[in-house]
Amino acid sequence: MTEHTVATLAALVGGRVVGDPDRTITGVGELQKATPQQLCFVRDAKYREAARTTAAGVVIATEPLETKASQIVVADVRLAFAKVASAFHPEPRAEAHRVHPTAVVHPDAVLEAPVDIGPHVVIGRARIGRGSVLMAGSVVEDGCRLGRDCTLYPNVVLYRRVELGNRVTAHSGTVIGSDGFGYAPHDHRWVKVPQLGTVVIADDVEIGAGCAVDRGALGDTRIGERTKIDNLCHIAHNCIIGADCAIAAACFLAGSTVLGDRVTFAGHVISAGHLNVPTDARIGGNSGLRGDVPGRGDWMGWPLQDLRRYGRTHVLLGKLDEMHAEIERLKARLDQRE
Amino acid sequence: MTEHTVATLAALVGGRVVGDPDRTITGVGELQKATPQQLCFVRDAKYREAARTTAAGVVIATEPLETKASQIVVADVRLAFAKVASAFHPEPRAEAHRVHPTAVVHPDAVLEAPVDIGPHVVIGRARIGRGSVLMAGSVVEDGCRLGRDCTLYPNVVLYRRVELGNRVTAHSGTVIGSDGFGYAPHDHRWVKVPQLGTVVIADDVEIGAGCAVDRGALGDTRIGERTKIDNLCHIAHNCIIGADCAIAAACFLAGSTVLGDRVTFAGHVISAGHLNVPTDARIGGNSGLRGDVPGRGDWMGWPLQDLRRYGRTHVLLGKLDEMHAEIERLKARLDQRE
Amino acid sequence: MTEHTVATLAALVGGRVVGDPDRTITGVGELQKATPQQLCFVRDAKYREAARTTAAGVVIATEPLETKASQIVVADVRLAFAKVASAFHPEPRAEAHRVHPTAVVHPDAVLEAPVDIGPHVVIGRARIGRGSVLMAGSVVEDGCRLGRDCTLYPNVVLYRRVELGNRVTAHSGTVIGSDGFGYAPHDHRWVKVPQLGTVVIADDVEIGAGCAVDRGALGDTRIGERTKIDNLCHIAHNCIIGADCAIAAACFLAGSTVLGDRVTFAGHVISAGHLNVPTDARIGGNSGLRGDVPGRGDWMGWPLQDLRRYGRTHVLLGKLDEMHAEIERLKARLDQRE
Repeated sequence: MTEHTVATLAALVGGRVVGDPDRTITGVGELQKATPQQLCFVRDAKYREAARTTAAGVVIATEPLETKASQIVVADVRLAFAKVASAFHPEPRAEAHRVHPTAVVHPDAVLEAPVDIGPHVVIGRARIGRGSVLMAGSVVEDGCRLGRDCTLYPNVVLYRRVELGNRVTAHSGTVIGSDGFGYAPHDHRWVKVPQLGTVVIADDVEIGAGCAVDRGALGDTRIGERTKIDNLCHIAHNCIIGADCAIAAACFLAGSTVLGDRVTFAGHVISAGHLNVPTDARIGGNSGLRGDVPGRGDWMGWPLQDLRRYGRTHVLLGKLDEMHAEIERLKARLDQRE
Repeated sequence: MTEHTVATLAALVGGRVVGDPDRTITGVGELQKATPQQLCFVRDAKYREAARTTAAGVVIATEPLETKASQIVVADVRLAFAKVASAFHPEPRAEAHRVHPTAVVHPDAVLEAPVDIGPHVVIGRARIGRGSVLMAGSVVEDGCRLGRDCTLYPNVVLYRRVELGNRVTAHSGTVIGSDGFGYAPHDHRWVKVPQLGTVVIADDVEIGAGCAVDRGALGDTRIGERTKIDNLCHIAHNCIIGADCAIAAACFLAGSTVLGDRVTFAGHVISAGHLNVPTDARIGGNSGLRGDVPGRGDWMGWPLQDLRRYGRTHVLLGKLDEMHAEIERLKARLDQRE
Repeated sequence: MTEHTVATLAALVGGRVVGDPDRTITGVGELQKATPQQLCFVRDAKYREAARTTAAGVVIATEPLETKASQIVVADVRLAFAKVASAFHPEPRAEAHRVHPTAVVHPDAVLEAPVDIGPHVVIGRARIGRGSVLMAGSVVEDGCRLGRDCTLYPNVVLYRRVELGNRVTAHSGTVIGSDGFGYAPHDHRWVKVPQLGTVVIADDVEIGAGCAVDRGALGDTRIGERTKIDNLCHIAHNCIIGADCAIAAACFLAGSTVLGDRVTFAGHVISAGHLNVPTDARIGGNSGLRGDVPGRGDWMGWPLQDLRRYGRTHVLLGKLDEMHAEIERLKARLDQRE
């Protein structure tokens, strides 16, 4: 079991200790259920009362609180929590070299020891960087290249020639490198256009469960450094996604959607494809993109509007009947006067 | 082959026999294609003509019909059909204890015999309740606990520590316990917040194919007794779903969405998260939730309205051009008079 | 490595050679990066400059261009590209009979040699047509019948009795034949209605990654010849989809949606089910169907309108605030006059 002292954790998060710095902490917990060996965090004033009575050994907060627990005072509680929790629950990494006997690894595959290859994994003529963990049932086809410390959760599939940088994580059921939806119409039928590009994913990207990221038609589909993608997203062929983006669940990006850096898509944003979303644009949930997003900042709706304007639109969408009735009344008044 | 007499089936559904109670029935079929050994159901008056000429041995209907078939008369045909069909096609259950030789089962796993563990299944230090069937390629990680008579269809993944009650069914490709989408922003980058809770699913829940149910960030994601979830749904971290809910396909629930009991979501309902849907609320298809649903009953739209009002809104959404033209006409008339 | 002369490729696409017909070509590439052994295509006038300076050995275009490359002049560049690229990158086909030793094949399964059965594939009492390729981790349950030259990418699941025609392709993570969402309400609970039909997929259908196609409740779910379906689509029980349809990503079809032939759904079309979409109807992206589509041609929106009218509606959805303000102004003017 991992153990840290309060002092160590405070140093980790750049926080100030109030109370006993030598307590030993073995994990994180919820305020109401914590034990004296656990650390909790006080996200906001709403949790102060719970902090007062918690049995936790240490709490993280933005200011000293009335509590028996030791405290670590920080500017950003959520960030501090992320760091502390990661100290207790690090990402999966291969420490000893292990290839499960049921894994099927091509003799020409290059596994940079140590890697951890789980049961029933299948690896073609691919290269797997050191520290990577490929969990049960994942499939890595010929020509794939994975950097260091990648994690494939169970039943991930990488089609041929997909490239992952370092510390890329893909959750279960996600498929990377499937054929883009490319067909040429001919005589009222669809003729398949082979999809010859691949998918290139940069360092520190995380992709949720059940996503599909298609390979490029001719060039590549690309996802930039540190971008995070949630569950059940569709990234079509030749999308280019910048660095440090956050794409929440059920976003569906049609082909050749181009995102700059630090773009955020709240949940269920639909993009028509062949359009640009500039760096630092933020798209609200349940929005649809039909053309280029005009600039950075906040946007929402279908059609897309700046967020403030969409706020008014959203309200009016709920008052269409009143608007209609008012039009009818105005018409009646005018009719009456004529 | 399973066989039942008409009398037995009538008793099963609490129906009254008209005609021969001793006929032997071996299965269910469609009215037009049925054989004398099959049972059919007459859902409504539209199917009466087909019932008159069917070759089926017995029909289930709400009143005696003109037909050569024996009849079972019941109040609720669909319910009766469900029961009869289940008599012929019961859910998968392990009867003999079987662990396929290609399955990889941790030596500390507890399998309560009989269970049926299919090819290439991977089970960590987990507990599998008696009667459960884990089909090919499913993965159950360390710390999971499955109750009795659970069914995992092929290629289901349960991340560490997921808990299923009794008679829980998950269809293929579904992922339960994947990390929630939790990141702390820091210096224009995203720092992962480890997802430390799990998913707890109560008795008699069924989850369709290709769903993703994320583990809680700190507390748990929960799904209540007998709730049914259709394909390709996303249930984010810390959602709490009550009992006897029905969530149709492609519903996407952001984090901390809370549903009471007997909530129904028709297909493709989007929830913004951190909101409440009260017991007995029914949300129409293609709706979006941005805040608490005000009460029980029927709601629909984006923004959400009570169903009757949304009916008017839906019509008006299709008449925006007419409303706009009318406004223009009124304006012209007023301009002319001034 | 596959090689073709320019003359051979020109014959394949019915094109006219300008320049050297005897050059040897080994693959296709992008104009700016191509080598003299590669063929490129010039989609439209925008690419003419790149064609002028390309190092490619041959370019396909609709008219002779100024370039050092040989040329193949055709009427339809995209179609020609599809054919040429397919010559270099044919669909996977089993040429030698191969059953990976880790595959689990029921002794009563019928494999028409040659087939290529990958690692950890599981095949029940099923029939697999000659030429078919079942990649790693795919599962084909009892009673399935696959025609010739089918391709299941890794981790596809076919539930019991699913039928695929010839040359059917399913991409990774796709599930075919899962139970439809059928429950009878009883006493405020949901009683499962066993789903007794199956899924029948005709020749030359391609289904993308992460889709769910449910089996019929009593009759079957059907997909017609040559229809193409993109990623993350949901096809509910008893949908009947015609021939030569194209259904882009994230389309969700509720039960008993019926599509004629040559129907196209752009991305993210939602169908309420129990409705008809006639032959040659084209539905724009991000649309919702609540009832029968009135006829062929182009439709879009929620509610659905003919495309031209929806164009106006889409603009007005972005001007609701202006419409509202104009109504207010008109009202003030009238109030003032009274």
